[in-house]
Amino acid sequence: MFILVNLKAYPCDPIAVATAAKEVADESGVRIAVSPQAAHIERVAETGVETWAQHVSPNGYGSFTGSTLAEAVADAGAVGTLINHSENRRKLADIDASIQAAKNADLETCVCANNPRQTGAAAALGPDSVAVEPPELIGGDESVSSADPDIVENAVSAAAAVDESVDVYCGAGVSTGEDVVAAGELGAEGILLASGVAKADDPKEALEDLVSGL
Amino acid sequence: MFILVNLKAYPCDPIAVATAAKEVADESGVRIAVSPQAAHIERVAETGVETWAQHVSPNGYGSFTGSTLAEAVADAGAVGTLINHSENRRKLADIDASIQAAKNADLETCVCANNPRQTGAAAALGPDSVAVEPPELIGGDESVSSADPDIVENAVSAAAAVDESVDVYCGAGVSTGEDVVAAGELGAEGILLASGVAKADDPKEALEDLVSGL
Amino acid sequence: MFILVNLKAYPCDPIAVATAAKEVADESGVRIAVSPQAAHIERVAETGVETWAQHVSPNGYGSFTGSTLAEAVADAGAVGTLINHSENRRKLADIDASIQAAKNADLETCVCANNPRQTGAAAALGPDSVAVEPPELIGGDESVSSADPDIVENAVSAAAAVDESVDVYCGAGVSTGEDVVAAGELGAEGILLASGVAKADDPKEALEDLVSGL
Amino acid sequence: MFILVNLKAYPCDPIAVATAAKEVADESGVRIAVSPQAAHIERVAETGVETWAQHVSPNGYGSFTGSTLAEAVADAGAVGTLINHSENRRKLADIDASIQAAKNADLETCVCANNPRQTGAAAALGPDSVAVEPPELIGGDESVSSADPDIVENAVSAAAAVDESVDVYCGAGVSTGEDVVAAGELGAEGILLASGVAKADDPKEALEDLVSGL
Repeated sequence: MFILVNLKAYPCDPIAVATAAKEVADESGVRIAVSPQAAHIERVAETGVETWAQHVSPNGYGSFTGSTLAEAVADAGAVGTLINHSENRRKLADIDASIQAAKNADLETCVCANNPRQTGAAAALGPDSVAVEPPELIGGDESVSSADPDIVENAVSAAAAVDESVDVYCGAGVSTGEDVVAAGELGAEGILLASGVAKADDPKEALEDLVSGL
Repeated sequence: MFILVNLKAYPCDPIAVATAAKEVADESGVRIAVSPQAAHIERVAETGVETWAQHVSPNGYGSFTGSTLAEAVADAGAVGTLINHSENRRKLADIDASIQAAKNADLETCVCANNPRQTGAAAALGPDSVAVEPPELIGGDESVSSADPDIVENAVSAAAAVDESVDVYCGAGVSTGEDVVAAGELGAEGILLASGVAKADDPKEALEDLVSGL
Repeated sequence: MFILVNLKAYPCDPIAVATAAKEVADESGVRIAVSPQAAHIERVAETGVETWAQHVSPNGYGSFTGSTLAEAVADAGAVGTLINHSENRRKLADIDASIQAAKNADLETCVCANNPRQTGAAAALGPDSVAVEPPELIGGDESVSSADPDIVENAVSAAAAVDESVDVYCGAGVSTGEDVVAAGELGAEGILLASGVAKADDPKEALEDLVSGL
Repeated sequence: MFILVNLKAYPCDPIAVATAAKEVADESGVRIAVSPQAAHIERVAETGVETWAQHVSPNGYGSFTGSTLAEAVADAGAVGTLINHSENRRKLADIDASIQAAKNADLETCVCANNPRQTGAAAALGPDSVAVEPPELIGGDESVSSADPDIVENAVSAAAAVDESVDVYCGAGVSTGEDVVAAGELGAEGILLASGVAKADDPKEALEDLVSGL
């Protein structure tokens, strides 16, 4: 199970969360990554935690002012990237091109999707993983694995029907170790979460709870 | 074989093209449709030709000023719609929602895609058809079926691997009856074309040539 | 005072509203226009009511599939267009180009803006008018002229400081004749409204009330 | 005169350019800043050169995955930001909100514009400066100050008519000290340039030439 902590644009201390994530990953043996703002990637990566970008642009090197160049985030220390997060929806052609741009920079790719149909579509583009997150549950108190277990199972089926090598992650409302175990039982190979750790009084404690059932 | 004539924002007379298309469809028995500007749908549909919208928005009824409501284009006489044309690229989530919006209004759906990967992705969203059009060939002199036959065959395979019920159309550079026959031999069930008819001195003659080998 | 009834993507009968608007305009002498879906422009214009598009694209004739061509909506009967409605926000460069495209097609232009700063910015682009509509009041029960009178006065000042020839309209929550009079007293030369007429049981009665104080 | 070197997504060494810019600024007394990829801001700022972001998003802290948070780029060392570069055109409402977001993070703001009309519009939103860059000249061999001097003078007039406190910069094709002097004579208070320095064999030499006439 992979746990990816998305720091969004939260007013948290990215180094404090990264340090906690690195410690819990080392202590538990569970794979944990942190995805900060692009401007914080270098500082976060220096903690030793696995570091992901929140987005990369569909372009390679060139005249693309204001883009998030895959090679630049990789150079700063990122080893993976989210693409098409529900707060950052992208054109189909650009998701395709962003996956290719990320691969050229040796970044692992996770494309986000709203539902099982979009999960299948994203899987057809050849990313490493697809994360299904029903928008209505993001940031809420109830985990997708209990609120809408069918969506996770259907997303796993939809991805497998297109490309068996693409992992499915799930997100939205995940905040406890029980949620993580439940997601795994539905076929998810990873978890995306944000506020449950980034806004926790004690991020380390929150992460320890999340990995407790693994 | 289905022939869809996209009038884009060309300065052509939409009624003249529609009338020619209706006549050639009646005389040849080949299915031919015309896709005009939304503001011209009603007038084009009144000629009796099969009429398609160039786009529908991802919303149903509601507070969506400036949207292209599927129910409105259907009410004006459209029976199908393009979605995600290369000149009008859309977000993955919006393509998904536009397909659903079109289905709710009983419109047939054709999603456009740049390449075989995107063709598979589009097919996973459940449209009636996907049109593969390499952007670099659109508006050019060489037909996709001769310039890049692999892309058509690979798109047909990619769609079939995801959903066998989804037809594949091809476009970009198609202008002669030979191009149409070649596309059919590569597995395409339809042709998207634009300037070859819309900018022809005699649209009827151009259409007669296109269907001549069928 | 100009009253522009925006039908958005509402499930109303555009002909019924257009007919009512035409009658009230004729009976009262007040200028009233109706802005339907692009696919309904021709039918609405045939009632004789002044007809506006809800949007035009920043392009002229050409390869722009899915665009809303200014010349096409003008050809269907529109004489004006909204640009940059809060439900259809556009890039600064595209607002500029849409105004030019509309002028080329002899369409009157009204650019929408959220606040006085944006009203000044829109006025600098040379449209015929700017409509200030605080997004938080759109579709609500309280009129901008009573909920936030300063915003109307400040918008009028901001536009005048940039270009005195640009009229300011206001919208958001306007539903009664008193609201219209109040808006006029704050310096507005026109009113944008939608649900107050489009969703009224009796659109004619709603319009008669709106013009009653003029 | 202010010289802003935009590194876009070029495959240059941002530290080498930053170091050269710092040296030339110190030696000449001319204000020079460098605008790298967000992921490189911290490393560039550590050279001591004035560092700018290429873009900031229209949001403050919150659930905005993939955004470029003004507070994050400021925390990494940026003191200013471009907004609405021609390679990254933005909605009018978002330019307005990005300026406010940048101000909240104590970042200086420069909004880019295509022409004098858009320069006036941008000035109405209250940034510190507006940079006029005709898109057709960007990346070319001829300087805007010689190819189209009217556009610079008209942009200066348009901004002054709206808000005298807003400086006007110019860009597009500037590559020599003569171009810089010519731009200043037309009323520009700053220069945006990119390839002339970022792609130079010797960035320091290129910068020394640029400031040679000041």
